[in-house]
Amino acid sequence: MKMALRACLRTKPGLTGLLSQLSCSGHAAARRAPALVAQRSSSSTSQKIKVDFDQSSGVAVMHMQSPPVNSLSLEFLTDVCIALEKLEMDKSCRGLVVTSSQPKVFSAGLDILDMYGKSPEHCAEFWKAVQEMWLKFYGSNMITIAAVNGSSPAGGCLLSMTCDYRIMADNPRYSIGLNETKLGIVAPFWFKDTMVNTVGHRATEMALQLGLLYSPAEALKIGLVDQLVHEDQVLTTATETMTKWLAIPDHARQLTKSMMRKPTIDKLAANREADVNNFVKFITKDSIQKSLGMYLEMLKRRKA
Amino acid sequence: MKMALRACLRTKPGLTGLLSQLSCSGHAAARRAPALVAQRSSSSTSQKIKVDFDQSSGVAVMHMQSPPVNSLSLEFLTDVCIALEKLEMDKSCRGLVVTSSQPKVFSAGLDILDMYGKSPEHCAEFWKAVQEMWLKFYGSNMITIAAVNGSSPAGGCLLSMTCDYRIMADNPRYSIGLNETKLGIVAPFWFKDTMVNTVGHRATEMALQLGLLYSPAEALKIGLVDQLVHEDQVLTTATETMTKWLAIPDHARQLTKSMMRKPTIDKLAANREADVNNFVKFITKDSIQKSLGMYLEMLKRRKA
Amino acid sequence: MKMALRACLRTKPGLTGLLSQLSCSGHAAARRAPALVAQRSSSSTSQKIKVDFDQSSGVAVMHMQSPPVNSLSLEFLTDVCIALEKLEMDKSCRGLVVTSSQPKVFSAGLDILDMYGKSPEHCAEFWKAVQEMWLKFYGSNMITIAAVNGSSPAGGCLLSMTCDYRIMADNPRYSIGLNETKLGIVAPFWFKDTMVNTVGHRATEMALQLGLLYSPAEALKIGLVDQLVHEDQVLTTATETMTKWLAIPDHARQLTKSMMRKPTIDKLAANREADVNNFVKFITKDSIQKSLGMYLEMLKRRKA
Repeated sequence: MKMALRACLRTKPGLTGLLSQLSCSGHAAARRAPALVAQRSSSSTSQKIKVDFDQSSGVAVMHMQSPPVNSLSLEFLTDVCIALEKLEMDKSCRGLVVTSSQPKVFSAGLDILDMYGKSPEHCAEFWKAVQEMWLKFYGSNMITIAAVNGSSPAGGCLLSMTCDYRIMADNPRYSIGLNETKLGIVAPFWFKDTMVNTVGHRATEMALQLGLLYSPAEALKIGLVDQLVHEDQVLTTATETMTKWLAIPDHARQLTKSMMRKPTIDKLAANREADVNNFVKFITKDSIQKSLGMYLEMLKRRKA
Repeated sequence: MKMALRACLRTKPGLTGLLSQLSCSGHAAARRAPALVAQRSSSSTSQKIKVDFDQSSGVAVMHMQSPPVNSLSLEFLTDVCIALEKLEMDKSCRGLVVTSSQPKVFSAGLDILDMYGKSPEHCAEFWKAVQEMWLKFYGSNMITIAAVNGSSPAGGCLLSMTCDYRIMADNPRYSIGLNETKLGIVAPFWFKDTMVNTVGHRATEMALQLGLLYSPAEALKIGLVDQLVHEDQVLTTATETMTKWLAIPDHARQLTKSMMRKPTIDKLAANREADVNNFVKFITKDSIQKSLGMYLEMLKRRKA
Repeated sequence: MKMALRACLRTKPGLTGLLSQLSCSGHAAARRAPALVAQRSSSSTSQKIKVDFDQSSGVAVMHMQSPPVNSLSLEFLTDVCIALEKLEMDKSCRGLVVTSSQPKVFSAGLDILDMYGKSPEHCAEFWKAVQEMWLKFYGSNMITIAAVNGSSPAGGCLLSMTCDYRIMADNPRYSIGLNETKLGIVAPFWFKDTMVNTVGHRATEMALQLGLLYSPAEALKIGLVDQLVHEDQVLTTATETMTKWLAIPDHARQLTKSMMRKPTIDKLAANREADVNNFVKFITKDSIQKSLGMYLEMLKRRKA
């Protein structure tokens, strides 16, 4: 585990899809130290997430800056949720753009280090945080736009799919998709539901079975993203697009969004505990742990 | 209200999308006079709806001719339903083409004057008529083809979506879509269900949140209409298309149509009263009435 | 009936869609002779279905070779299910390619001779076999690829839709689709569900109402098949494609496939008896039998 961790410390977003399939957060072990919890809660919000809120437009931009690849660790997920909740409660904030400050990657997805060699209790806590992130984003009253300025596999793809609109950098080196099967793990039903709502049943069936990572052009073609622009224009385009959405009366838009998404949200909300248990039971299996371990080894060797 | 009414009397289908977003029926106040009800019931059927039934082909053409913009008022909806019911009961009538006799507009949608400044009772009666129209058209045993020869926002779009096939005039000045949110109101769940059945979940989510009105070319691309032809050819093409559909044995086609649509129809049929209550509660809110009032003022100023 | 049978004996896959809409199996009457049942069970497996299993790759190829057009008769369906079951139980078999050894046709669909002039008991037994085929293929743990090297109407289309991937010969003379309504019969709900899962609600609604048979190019456009290749390359491409699918860990892929398909499978599994009763009640109606009889006469005249 220790060597795997060290490998991860050096992990940078790769140019190949494989490398960014799952991810590990740079300094996970250190950050888990209980003594630092209280202090980190606030400081990490500013360290790993930078929120620029423009009071005049009512639009916030959330920059994910958790090196090296914005892995969705338990800690980072918690920070993201706290930041989102604050904005959600601020009536003057009507729109949110989510983007990455890390080069070449939007988010590399769920942090493998929160699933590998961890206690069932830790895995359960981690999974609750993943659920929480999805529930909050998919059900947000704000207009949410994903400015996908880099690769976005697995949990990164999920995060972008929770938004109302997805703009991706037109760089063929980037990819996006739910590639869980390639690692021997399975996207849970609400990942699947979110993708079906986005690209339909058939495209989802093939994407999930094959763990497909799509190039920006392919992602646009199947509707996984809504628009491609030059890398430099992703954030600007997101802001311009936001203006169009802000023209719609909030109340009517929110009710409409809720009507579209509520059935999918209710399905998880009614089954959170069972879903946590399923995840913990699956992820702690010897065979699955072995798969994850081999994957970490592969990452390590790649970086050596 | 009086000035708004006068403004409406002069309303013509505009070339901009906004003007045709919702509509008001020319002489609503006069037509509401109770003393005229009995007489109108039959005469208006011939005045506002002209049905040409060709016994030899088994195909009827329903021309909507309610000036200026075929607004779906309580009265007009009632007439439409009566006309449809007659055809439905006539075993020799196998197909129905729905089209407009008004220039530039198919139908401008639900009549705003039946929702603005009206008693809850009136609003409830109006909404039941909207439901009735949808239930009858979406569940029709006949082959129904919409010959969309003009703009078709909101309720007009809904009417066309209830048909088995949609042919639209290829005039970029026309538009079609469920644009309710732009007025601060919300398309009910069965409008949404009909659109999801037509263009899928994702396109519906974006269309409804943004209240999008699509050009004919855009509508074709997302599948909101099935075919574009020159303005002069809409009705002819509808008749030709009907021939193809008439080649299918009625019984098998009807059972198949019912299998596809029954779950969606049953959902409203089982919840009509709750849906009426929701509508009345929503539409009679001060904030919503104010929105509608402002919209009527805008129409008035435009026409001044 | 006898003449119709003789006509069928000479039936070859036609170049027109109509001829291959439904089908009749060459020597049905003879094969039904009870005395031959036991003997046939094993021999027909080798005669009408040839399975090549490559132990090294873990991939089996099922060649349907039931002349003239791979009609899905009660007997052939039984053989197909037995062959599939054997492969399913063989842990070393991970992938299955289904293809046809008959020229110009993949499968002409359900055998009309098992529905025409038969006892309700026979019809019920036949329908159970159709259900069984669908349940086994749609729920298969193996990777299933349809190498559609010829026309594939009705039940033939259903069989190909149960697979994970469909490669079709790019020959405009071939067609694919659920064309039941053209014969006055109705595709049952699970045929419909399978098609909705493949091409979406709207395309299914139109396809089923009109009984559309699509050219390969049209089928690709709506997503009814996934890939077109030259006639000579169908099987080779299937094998190459299989390699891509084999790269995914079986366990994760199987769980994912089950997650996508289980709700649809459960729906029939919970309603098999009612579905059999519906079918028998419908197919034994005088009007339907008359339709089928006329269709058989037409086939006979065509071949005279």
